Amino acid sequence: MAVGQNEFPTMPPIPGIKLGTTNAGIKQTVRDDLLLIAMAEKATCAAVFTKNAFCAAPVLVAKEHLKNKPRWLLINSGNANAGTGLQGYEDAKATCHQVAAEADGKANQVLPFSTGVIGQRLPVDKVKAGVPGAFSKLNEDNWDKAARAIMTTDTFPKGVTQTIMLDGHAVTINGISKGAGMIQPDMATMLAFLATDAKIAQPLLQSCLAKAVEQSFNRITVDGDTSTNDACVLMASGLSLAPEITENSSQYQQFADTVLSVCKQLAELIVRDGEGATKLMRIVVEQAQSDEEAVRVGKTIAHSPLVKTAFFASDPNWGRILAAVGRAGVAYMVLTDVQIYLDDVCIVRSGGVANDYTEAAGQRVMDQEEITVTIKLGRGQAYQEVLTCDFSYDYVKINAEYRT
Amino acid sequence: MAVGQNEFPTMPPIPGIKLGTTNAGIKQTVRDDLLLIAMAEKATCAAVFTKNAFCAAPVLVAKEHLKNKPRWLLINSGNANAGTGLQGYEDAKATCHQVAAEADGKANQVLPFSTGVIGQRLPVDKVKAGVPGAFSKLNEDNWDKAARAIMTTDTFPKGVTQTIMLDGHAVTINGISKGAGMIQPDMATMLAFLATDAKIAQPLLQSCLAKAVEQSFNRITVDGDTSTNDACVLMASGLSLAPEITENSSQYQQFADTVLSVCKQLAELIVRDGEGATKLMRIVVEQAQSDEEAVRVGKTIAHSPLVKTAFFASDPNWGRILAAVGRAGVAYMVLTDVQIYLDDVCIVRSGGVANDYTEAAGQRVMDQEEITVTIKLGRGQAYQEVLTCDFSYDYVKINAEYRT
Repeated sequence: MAVGQNEFPTMPPIPGIKLGTTNAGIKQTVRDDLLLIAMAEKATCAAVFTKNAFCAAPVLVAKEHLKNKPRWLLINSGNANAGTGLQGYEDAKATCHQVAAEADGKANQVLPFSTGVIGQRLPVDKVKAGVPGAFSKLNEDNWDKAARAIMTTDTFPKGVTQTIMLDGHAVTINGISKGAGMIQPDMATMLAFLATDAKIAQPLLQSCLAKAVEQSFNRITVDGDTSTNDACVLMASGLSLAPEITENSSQYQQFADTVLSVCKQLAELIVRDGEGATKLMRIVVEQAQSDEEAVRVGKTIAHSPLVKTAFFASDPNWGRILAAVGRAGVAYMVLTDVQIYLDDVCIVRSGGVANDYTEAAGQRVMDQEEITVTIKLGRGQAYQEVLTCDFSYDYVKINAEYRT
Repeated sequence: MAVGQNEFPTMPPIPGIKLGTTNAGIKQTVRDDLLLIAMAEKATCAAVFTKNAFCAAPVLVAKEHLKNKPRWLLINSGNANAGTGLQGYEDAKATCHQVAAEADGKANQVLPFSTGVIGQRLPVDKVKAGVPGAFSKLNEDNWDKAARAIMTTDTFPKGVTQTIMLDGHAVTINGISKGAGMIQPDMATMLAFLATDAKIAQPLLQSCLAKAVEQSFNRITVDGDTSTNDACVLMASGLSLAPEITENSSQYQQFADTVLSVCKQLAELIVRDGEGATKLMRIVVEQAQSDEEAVRVGKTIAHSPLVKTAFFASDPNWGRILAAVGRAGVAYMVLTDVQIYLDDVCIVRSGGVANDYTEAAGQRVMDQEEITVTIKLGRGQAYQEVLTCDFSYDYVKINAEYRT
């Protein structure tokens, strides 16, 4: 029940980034559910986290530890360690200590991540017991296994890789992600882990990641819910032969563009695997007065249950789209300046149905699995995109029947 | 498919307010679809309208005409005259002229209202042809027929009446409303018409209505969508024997409380008839720092598809409620101060599941048709309520299959 073919790519190793997975028995399946990532000593690491005020225990710990030059990431699926109070915080810390003991390192250099059921205590003994096994599997070639180990209700593993040439030397960026609802049916979260062999200082890496996330993961929505555990990490081992990437250089711009591209692709894969999704909708808002205004209009459309159910029904229902634009909270919007397109078919012009629009033309677009909805506001030059999926019976089914 | 028994009450006449309905053939059913309301000469009239930037043509005209001491309201169901551009505006004006001609009055004293399909031209000839018939039926006893004439996909007519004693004289407030989604599946709108025999100046009546709407109709949500045609009107004929209601009097407070009460009941009836609704959810937010903050938290919960599908499944899923509170955008919220109750069962305390909570107790509440969810934020004294309904297969069915 995902949109499109989504084959896992062949992902090259990133020198200095090793991954190890094991089945720690957290999920009661035969699948690996614990992932350890170890970075080379001089690697830098950036991360951004959920804006949800009630972030989960591992997010709190990871935020604290991020400033200590992290060396290890420990990710478990099956339990989110969210809504678990002080106990959850202590449990997350205990898993960091286990990694440190095994690695002969410091616990405050370990970033913990959890995804899975909310509100149940993390089976901390199982996680700790799994750590040595994950260590023993550490290898630079394990991206595929890593992508599978972090899955919860995802229907396919998600990976993206891109290689660019900087000053004649190859630099690779790998990324994996998981998540099939902004919040899963209690499966707290979207997680994404990227790694590169580029050499780049932490502050620059952090600002590069923050900008990329804003334009990618923060531009997708399945149901408008923001998880308690969302996190995206970018590690840079510095082992490429390319020279260090510095601010305001053309190399930085090329690197940042590639990070953004990888993030966008990973984000799109999450929407393609959206709960119950049958269609991928790309909402493009043009001619806005500002980026913020464009995003606001795009997200209002993307969150509208009426728009999403219409797309599920392949119904070119422009009235619902127009009404959503109108209630987006943009001041002094002029109805007659607004145009709406389904792919290249103009459906609304001057505030009403376009003269040359035909139901047949609209229906032809709506019958596709991937549709671009373009809104031209006629107010300015700003342009932004939001990605979402439709709202189907299966969305209700998945979310209503999850606990039963 | 509505929540609860919702019988239409016996509604007494309001002296000076006459209602007439007819079948103008707009809806192609045998039901009346045109309602005319005539006010006594000295009546005052207040109205509030949708905040959607793209309001429908009749809303534009009604806003213009409101300042001219309106005498007549003309309401049609079956066609919303929305997304119809300049033509729609001229059509709405034309219907006002028809009423004026029949009444020997002024067109700019007629307020037009439309509800029904978006984006199709109003069948203006049918509406005009129906006007004489509606005039011939004008009668103070027609509240029941009026409530039925404004229905679109509503499954029951909605009416509320309350009588209070002011200075020893009876004052009655009647109200009718329609709407089964914030926006119907293209059935633009929530409409509500209230009338009283109280004597009260227009500016005071307007501020009384605006406050009441803010606390009632603006506190309900079915799907978060705001229609292009929403309107609420309060007419005061001034024919009660009670003295004029003036500002800052105890009589005003009593009157305003009753207007609010009638509005709240009418709003609740709309939620009970929400598309696909199987449960009525009363979201009570307590201990907020401000009313605005309380409403923001309440609406975030009420709009969450994850919360709504959990209620459809009778699943006491506190993790989803807590996550919605966390992403409501309230600064410096402290997780451990938050408590959540299902009716009188405490389910969350100190950021996690309450020690004394049992699944059996939670399940008992969730199996009810009406549930109060109370969120105590532990931040202040403010308190607000939001009403909503659950999200069922039928919501998707109704909205996905409407045009097919």
